[in-house]
Amino acid sequence: MTMTAEERIQSLERKVEELSGELGMLKDIHSVRTLHFKYGYYMDKCLFGEIVDLFSDNCEIYFMGGLFRGKAGARRLYGGTTGLNGPVHGMLFEHLLGQDIVDVAADRMTAQGRFRTFMQGGVHASKTDAPPNIPAQFWEAGVYENIYTKEDGIWKFKVFNYNVSWQALYEHGWAHTPAGGTLMVKPYTKTYPADPKGPDQLTVPPRLWPDNTIVPFHYPNPVTGKWLKPPAK
Amino acid sequence: MTMTAEERIQSLERKVEELSGELGMLKDIHSVRTLHFKYGYYMDKCLFGEIVDLFSDNCEIYFMGGLFRGKAGARRLYGGTTGLNGPVHGMLFEHLLGQDIVDVAADRMTAQGRFRTFMQGGVHASKTDAPPNIPAQFWEAGVYENIYTKEDGIWKFKVFNYNVSWQALYEHGWAHTPAGGTLMVKPYTKTYPADPKGPDQLTVPPRLWPDNTIVPFHYPNPVTGKWLKPPAK
Amino acid sequence: MTMTAEERIQSLERKVEELSGELGMLKDIHSVRTLHFKYGYYMDKCLFGEIVDLFSDNCEIYFMGGLFRGKAGARRLYGGTTGLNGPVHGMLFEHLLGQDIVDVAADRMTAQGRFRTFMQGGVHASKTDAPPNIPAQFWEAGVYENIYTKEDGIWKFKVFNYNVSWQALYEHGWAHTPAGGTLMVKPYTKTYPADPKGPDQLTVPPRLWPDNTIVPFHYPNPVTGKWLKPPAK
Repeated sequence: MTMTAEERIQSLERKVEELSGELGMLKDIHSVRTLHFKYGYYMDKCLFGEIVDLFSDNCEIYFMGGLFRGKAGARRLYGGTTGLNGPVHGMLFEHLLGQDIVDVAADRMTAQGRFRTFMQGGVHASKTDAPPNIPAQFWEAGVYENIYTKEDGIWKFKVFNYNVSWQALYEHGWAHTPAGGTLMVKPYTKTYPADPKGPDQLTVPPRLWPDNTIVPFHYPNPVTGKWLKPPAK
Repeated sequence: MTMTAEERIQSLERKVEELSGELGMLKDIHSVRTLHFKYGYYMDKCLFGEIVDLFSDNCEIYFMGGLFRGKAGARRLYGGTTGLNGPVHGMLFEHLLGQDIVDVAADRMTAQGRFRTFMQGGVHASKTDAPPNIPAQFWEAGVYENIYTKEDGIWKFKVFNYNVSWQALYEHGWAHTPAGGTLMVKPYTKTYPADPKGPDQLTVPPRLWPDNTIVPFHYPNPVTGKWLKPPAK
Repeated sequence: MTMTAEERIQSLERKVEELSGELGMLKDIHSVRTLHFKYGYYMDKCLFGEIVDLFSDNCEIYFMGGLFRGKAGARRLYGGTTGLNGPVHGMLFEHLLGQDIVDVAADRMTAQGRFRTFMQGGVHASKTDAPPNIPAQFWEAGVYENIYTKEDGIWKFKVFNYNVSWQALYEHGWAHTPAGGTLMVKPYTKTYPADPKGPDQLTVPPRLWPDNTIVPFHYPNPVTGKWLKPPAK
């Protein structure tokens, strides 16, 4: 049962093709996770121009009960909240990102990613002219469940879906966050242009801490392969 | 010294085999780190059924001076602490995980991994019926040094070894954690079934903050290749 | 246009060579990120001997307005700050590291890496003999922009550039950090040997919170490929 030279070359060609695809997938995972991490470093410094560039032209951004569409939507959202552009003396917006779970589709043209953030934000006591909606010092934690798209070989944000898990004033901690209250950004109730910084569409209002919900996972249980049915409450 | 076609094909076959193994190892690293990260997301939401599924049938779980064996042990531990299953309004158990160092064995059937967690936990002030052993708001940090096993191509937890580094009440901070005290879970002093939620075996009691110990590294110094001998105290 | 066996073998040789290089790059990324993460675990426990071993003989370490050169410089810096070596009962120096962005040069002999840290440090209330310059409990956050070098196949720190983003006492939070003040380590004003633990050279004094600056990125915008020009202030 020895293979001929021809058969061995064919077999090598198949294997090399296969390896090339698998390697490409690992490179895609690297690109997507670093794309998302770069987003975080830009957010730290309110570099909103850089951030809008990371989105696909036909992106969808879900945030606080609103859906923002395309670059125009992205531009209203980023910077719209605070009016800032670039780092500001005395203002802190640290976006610590991690726990990345990136899965690339078989055709390597889209990917899904779950990440979390743990933020430290606020305004230094010496700064007296900060926008009024930013608390002096606060924590925020949240989960992203995003879709990424590869366009001309470059990975971009396609569906951006950030879900605040909890927020808390530094002085009070998470046990004392006012129920239903939110810091900085209230859930959207009006669309653009009625709200000049508003979303294109209203979606489901977010359920905020002390409510406790599961942001749906884009993957099944990695051992059983079964998709989660959230436990009854 | 030109190689014949036969020699070149042989050389290609060897190299492709080698690349395939190295690539497989990178894929294994990806699987193990995302397995561990998925564990963290499940822990956030008390999805204990999902978690028990991540363990090998003959797993060993080391926690707070106890050793839990197999699925039965895992079931007593997860959920046993709080009796919860699924996210609960007003209860927070955030498991931020990262700093993964995963090393896969040459045969690619086992792997070792070091991770850390930084947790935010507690109970919202509005919730009056929480289990009594959960502080209103607390921090916890810890280090995992685990062994993973691949069974039928699927990575699972084999030896789970979580070590609390420090805990602190939010109001007091880590400088004021009572010496020898622990939050939520006390070191085990009785085995199952005498303790219905207890371990199968007692091990070395944990040394807790303000004690300061090194969870042994599964790897040598990456530059010198020498294994750490902890400094004398 | 069918290829001859010779042409197919040549094509395979080229592709395998290419795959080997790309795979090597992913392995390099893994080595660099875990090198940096291992540094963090050593820092947790003041394992300064292990840390100095991670540096290239001709390393450059930038910290707090000082430049430390080579192993001798590294030895003055690590351990010099506190005089410690190994974990100490009652002292906490947690270095949570993540958000790694590692880019390997085409020749695979150097790499650049951006990481961030979020630290919890301090001294337990029961410990009365701690060095006087360590606050009881504090937060620190910072960004690394490093260069790594591969020597004899082993990745090491070549240029180590750690930038404190902000520090805060636990009791006060980041809104109330004294302007221009620093915890533990003051910006250097004298070189070695006038300052026995000082740097070889003074550099630009660090701009500290509530100042808010951008640690330059080692990469362009991943979508546009354009390098950031920081916004005017």
